[in-house]
Amino acid sequence: MTASLTAVAPSQDQQGTQDLPALMSDLARKAKAAARVLALAPAEQKDRALAAMEQAIRNATPQILAANAEDVADARANGLSTALIDRLVLTEARIAAMAEGIEVVRGIADPVGKVTESWQRPNGMVIERVRVPLGVIAVIFESRPNVTADAGALSLKSGNAVILRGGSDGFRSSRAIHACLVAGLREAGLPEAAISFVPTRDRAAVGLLLGGLDGNVDLIVPRGGKSLVARVEAEARVPVFAHLDGINHVYVDHTAPLAMAEQIVLNAKMRRTGVCGAAETLLVERAAASSHLKPLVSMLLDAHCEVRGDAEVQRADARVTQVSDEDWATEYLDAIIAVKLVDGVDDAIAHIERYGSHHTDSIVTEDAKAAAKFLDEVDSAIVLHNASTQFADGGEFGFGAEIGIATGKFHARGPVGAEQLTSFKYRIHGTGQTRP
Amino acid sequence: MTASLTAVAPSQDQQGTQDLPALMSDLARKAKAAARVLALAPAEQKDRALAAMEQAIRNATPQILAANAEDVADARANGLSTALIDRLVLTEARIAAMAEGIEVVRGIADPVGKVTESWQRPNGMVIERVRVPLGVIAVIFESRPNVTADAGALSLKSGNAVILRGGSDGFRSSRAIHACLVAGLREAGLPEAAISFVPTRDRAAVGLLLGGLDGNVDLIVPRGGKSLVARVEAEARVPVFAHLDGINHVYVDHTAPLAMAEQIVLNAKMRRTGVCGAAETLLVERAAASSHLKPLVSMLLDAHCEVRGDAEVQRADARVTQVSDEDWATEYLDAIIAVKLVDGVDDAIAHIERYGSHHTDSIVTEDAKAAAKFLDEVDSAIVLHNASTQFADGGEFGFGAEIGIATGKFHARGPVGAEQLTSFKYRIHGTGQTRP
Repeated sequence: MTASLTAVAPSQDQQGTQDLPALMSDLARKAKAAARVLALAPAEQKDRALAAMEQAIRNATPQILAANAEDVADARANGLSTALIDRLVLTEARIAAMAEGIEVVRGIADPVGKVTESWQRPNGMVIERVRVPLGVIAVIFESRPNVTADAGALSLKSGNAVILRGGSDGFRSSRAIHACLVAGLREAGLPEAAISFVPTRDRAAVGLLLGGLDGNVDLIVPRGGKSLVARVEAEARVPVFAHLDGINHVYVDHTAPLAMAEQIVLNAKMRRTGVCGAAETLLVERAAASSHLKPLVSMLLDAHCEVRGDAEVQRADARVTQVSDEDWATEYLDAIIAVKLVDGVDDAIAHIERYGSHHTDSIVTEDAKAAAKFLDEVDSAIVLHNASTQFADGGEFGFGAEIGIATGKFHARGPVGAEQLTSFKYRIHGTGQTRP
Repeated sequence: MTASLTAVAPSQDQQGTQDLPALMSDLARKAKAAARVLALAPAEQKDRALAAMEQAIRNATPQILAANAEDVADARANGLSTALIDRLVLTEARIAAMAEGIEVVRGIADPVGKVTESWQRPNGMVIERVRVPLGVIAVIFESRPNVTADAGALSLKSGNAVILRGGSDGFRSSRAIHACLVAGLREAGLPEAAISFVPTRDRAAVGLLLGGLDGNVDLIVPRGGKSLVARVEAEARVPVFAHLDGINHVYVDHTAPLAMAEQIVLNAKMRRTGVCGAAETLLVERAAASSHLKPLVSMLLDAHCEVRGDAEVQRADARVTQVSDEDWATEYLDAIIAVKLVDGVDDAIAHIERYGSHHTDSIVTEDAKAAAKFLDEVDSAIVLHNASTQFADGGEFGFGAEIGIATGKFHARGPVGAEQLTSFKYRIHGTGQTRP
């Protein structure tokens, strides 16, 4: 491992921007060629590579930690925030979790080649719809080095080649992890270009990826903050799987059992405040103002969550601060929630359609009709009845892993797992049929 | 009908470009509002509207013919080609076929609300994947006025609002047909903005649609020649379902029964030469040069198809003309075919990957291994074994109708019918679950 770690990139990293377009074109062309091989690789061979990657990561723990220590030292010297450094830091436990993540991906079913539909036409032709990979995926991420392993493993499982473009801050860490993935590919006899790593910190590489590199990049997946996602969505000339915002709502009506409402609201907001499935707005039916609003608001405040509301909500607890119109359209990603009284399920739906981001929204109610209406009419990727919005996650869906969450309406919506990284084609079996 | 025909647009048509951005924004905003209603409209209501449209078109035949006669007179005066005028001309039979087309769409199953997958998580939550409409579709078409009815019906069936932008030449014809569709919507109590028609010939309207009109257009479907599709693909800021080229291949190997090969090749090339599913290149295994090449080439020539090939192919028949490198990448849409000898299935696949357009390709063989290899490795939307490429059609797939054929790898691939005009969402049924 050490040999490949040091062999990979230092010299290329120092090349600077001069040859960047040529370097990126070459990377993408090789990835496309590798994608043709991966598309036809049997499940066993891909799983063998994944197993070898797990082992390589475990074995290379000291090298990965050493690379990470250099990244973290630079980050401290550059005055990065504690939050960013926290995302960057790797520990033995985090590296072990990375290997376990690959193991989970290895365990899921190979989506490629699966016939999802099959029917016979009156003329005797049999039409099959069969899953095929997308081709080459470019994953553009920021500080978390573990994305290297997650995205690499999921792309391989789904028969896609991937080009990993890691953030500057975690450059050495990602490169060290990438070397382990390449070792796994090599051991299984798969092309090394199946998982490639942009060997330079030069930011111009991102622009080149977004341009599609002569049609050799089929999909872009940005993993990071809102400014990265916004840039990718604005500039990409190829399809993007992403979500810009997770402005998620929990709506509690007057029939909701209070204990259940409390558990769900607390979990949806406070389990982890920085994830895209966290709730940002609580809507309470006006008819439940006396029964539900006060205990829910006080519970949140007691849990050290800032609550923002108008005069009506402030009456429930003196600690509630004033809400502004902007709050309804804000993804706090923090221990803050906006609370509003609404007239009923229609009013709740109207609010969500106006301010939401079509990500994940939940209703807490015992009223089956209100629940059905909410689930039908709220136009979000994930709509829940009596469950927390924090279930917005590929693992929680049973997908094994996810490369991200998409809020577009095309192709992939919600958690993007191995299956969502495939397309399909029609295979038609005839016996000489011609069209009249 | 006449009232609405004359009421709709002449004044707006004369408005010119001055208010165009405002007019288009208004159209799109109303379409988006209508889409919310359509998304929740029951199948019966949509089918009632479709039935009323069929009747309205039949009843308005004289008005549609009169509008069409004006279009055709202008087209003649403007010196349009016979081929273009042929696409433009409506007859009683063509109008009847339009009404029958709507009847077919009415007969297919409503895709909206269908639960396509459902599973239970270990924590008891039930996750359903359910089909939902896409929103607002903009269909940009050229001279064929019947697209008005086809696209309107298919969009309605799939719960989507549609904005129809017809070509200048067929403007009055499309407007007359559109009036019938609106009459059907009205009769079923659905919003008239569910199917709207851009009431001006101003070409700037296309650019505005491609820009997405403030996020109110969700999908663009271009229907027309290559220059239209290329413009749409280059400029659109929203997803596009389209194919630029149909460079389709038939590969015949030495095990192919000659009679079957003859039938399939003749049908694939000559049934209709102007459709996107027509074959443009014939590949013959070199081992079948003496047994298959000569009869296939002579048969095509006898059927008044120009055959282009190199010296090897010219030896089969003196009437074969010289092929150029450009031919392999040309969609003739005419009675012309390029013919090449290849070394076997691998060589055929390599040729198709190099020159093809990932649309529709067929192998004629009795060799099951070669067939499986071809179907697996050719990366096209539709791959066939022992059947004609001209089956590339939503009707032939059993989809009832199609709004087009897509060669992208995202979302819709191959024929785009009602089902492909939907997305999905996840509905989760819980009993108070929170995430650990």
